[in-house]
Amino acid sequence: MPDPSRRFADQNCSIARTLEIVGERWTFLVLREAFLGVRRFDQMQADLSIARNILADRLQTLVAAGILERRRYQDHPPRSEYRLTLMGLDLYPIVISLMRWGDRYQTEHGPPVVLTHRACGREMTPVMACPHCSEEVTARDVTFAPGPGAVPGTHPAVVAARAR
Amino acid sequence: MPDPSRRFADQNCSIARTLEIVGERWTFLVLREAFLGVRRFDQMQADLSIARNILADRLQTLVAAGILERRRYQDHPPRSEYRLTLMGLDLYPIVISLMRWGDRYQTEHGPPVVLTHRACGREMTPVMACPHCSEEVTARDVTFAPGPGAVPGTHPAVVAARAR
Repeated sequence: MPDPSRRFADQNCSIARTLEIVGERWTFLVLREAFLGVRRFDQMQADLSIARNILADRLQTLVAAGILERRRYQDHPPRSEYRLTLMGLDLYPIVISLMRWGDRYQTEHGPPVVLTHRACGREMTPVMACPHCSEEVTARDVTFAPGPGAVPGTHPAVVAARAR
Repeated sequence: MPDPSRRFADQNCSIARTLEIVGERWTFLVLREAFLGVRRFDQMQADLSIARNILADRLQTLVAAGILERRRYQDHPPRSEYRLTLMGLDLYPIVISLMRWGDRYQTEHGPPVVLTHRACGREMTPVMACPHCSEEVTARDVTFAPGPGAVPGTHPAVVAARAR
């Protein structure tokens, strides 16, 4: 199978461009580790049972993309830890959405992990909501149209939607 | 590189289990097509510039998982279309979260596609919010603990968080 990267990068699509950077299954689990507060290579490696070279590769990709920041915390022997940048922290909705769907459809005994909202103190699963009216947003509640970043290659279904 | 599928399925983690099913880049773009209302193989193939055998494989995986439903719409010659099931529609927050992050960090001229919330009529980008207090939820607003589906193998960081 040819490397599909070129096709991905070519697409004027924010989903494709995000996947270009984080769209690999191990990468999401490395991000899970980071969001759980795990910062060190050896702990990630133990949690994920991942080959060391694969973990090193994924970490390097995430650092190069500006999603993780590498910080030396010990010099003898040299040891570094990995922390999410602000750009990395903004990946949280993706990770939570993946978790939520799995909790709903792929567990037998309920969620392995539960979340509590610090601000209100309630156990909760975040939902997608409209920032204006605060109502939950599902696929059927949304219409789409070409945006400022649209180019002549804009998706035909998007163009058709505007025409309706 | 060995197939990491086994490792993924072994993990008692809803993120890993979701990725087991949809965690492949083309799969997310096939889902994008479905959410844009594209239902036919040839149109998806044209939009994605994807090899026909890869598209057929991804569609079959999504049908087998119960995410897409295949319906015959013409008998001579035989033609089918693919529609999201309820379980498939529930993947929307994942797709939107991927899009939102790409819009924010990977575009030069703004979002290629903009969304409007039918209920309130405003152009918007959905946010992750607490279903109880409606406040936006970011990574720093959440604490986690083992849930009902936790097993002795529960992630050490989750156990440690509860102990704090």
